[in-house]
Amino acid sequence: MNRKVKKGLVIVNTGNGKGKSTSAFGILLRAWGRGFRICVVQFIKAETGQWGEIKAAKKLGIDWFTTGDGFTWTSKDMDETIAHAINGWEIAKEKIASRNYDVIILDEFTYTLHYGWLNTDQVIEWLKANKPEDSHLIITGRDAPPALIEYADLVTEMLEVKHPYQKGIQAQPGIEF
Amino acid sequence: MNRKVKKGLVIVNTGNGKGKSTSAFGILLRAWGRGFRICVVQFIKAETGQWGEIKAAKKLGIDWFTTGDGFTWTSKDMDETIAHAINGWEIAKEKIASRNYDVIILDEFTYTLHYGWLNTDQVIEWLKANKPEDSHLIITGRDAPPALIEYADLVTEMLEVKHPYQKGIQAQPGIEF
Repeated sequence: MNRKVKKGLVIVNTGNGKGKSTSAFGILLRAWGRGFRICVVQFIKAETGQWGEIKAAKKLGIDWFTTGDGFTWTSKDMDETIAHAINGWEIAKEKIASRNYDVIILDEFTYTLHYGWLNTDQVIEWLKANKPEDSHLIITGRDAPPALIEYADLVTEMLEVKHPYQKGIQAQPGIEF
Repeated sequence: MNRKVKKGLVIVNTGNGKGKSTSAFGILLRAWGRGFRICVVQFIKAETGQWGEIKAAKKLGIDWFTTGDGFTWTSKDMDETIAHAINGWEIAKEKIASRNYDVIILDEFTYTLHYGWLNTDQVIEWLKANKPEDSHLIITGRDAPPALIEYADLVTEMLEVKHPYQKGIQAQPGIEF
């Protein structure tokens, strides 16, 4: 029994507004403050390593994986985006099943389900069978499928009320990336 | 001219859902990853210092103030909650005007405005006159007043879709505090 986590939650941050990933990173910060073991698997985003959160995670000693980690190109028939999604999910499954983490974040994971790169029902069935009861799982991204919302314990929708691009203001480092 | 911040944004995270504060802390993590100077003034919350985010901020060397910092009881006629709000705003004004920070977070600040402990119009007038153009200001809390939303550049509403208390699950350390 994990002494730190009483009941592992499945948390989903979805919606068209800001704060889906940053909220997950805020929980990461909280959990790190408490000495939890944390892992992030980041889907979709370009792997420049120049994101503020990746710089921070490296400094904090948090395990951070992207869909390109360990990626080998095995099929010429497969779209590279889909291949990355599948590779990322393989990494995620390994980390979840390892029991080495108290909190695992699958950042921007919903897109792999929404666009059908992975099968939502199979993903949820795997999680039901394999996610440790005493670890938290946080999934972010727009358009979370209904089956994922049904499976989750805590779901928040981030709604855009006002955005600086409406004033022609560019994305700001440290805030948006 | 601050070399890091191109255009200082006023960001408001409001709504009845989770993720208002944690999203601000996620931005804090991003900004810290980029070497920004960060300050948090936390309103409302009890000052036990046992919150995961305070533990983390201490480890990271981030300046963190609560409304009790430097607080002296000056009036027997004033409600203590209001006195704390006023004291917190004095701290916030000093930190904002100091130009010592690239990112300042006023966590749970909206309550001081919504409940009328501070005058919303006066607060916004002060910010318009004194907030450095090249620093970001992040304000969190439910019920952000319309005038604050009007003043802000980026506003997100966090909506509760599903919450674990509906299943009778308690708040979890590292996740909710």
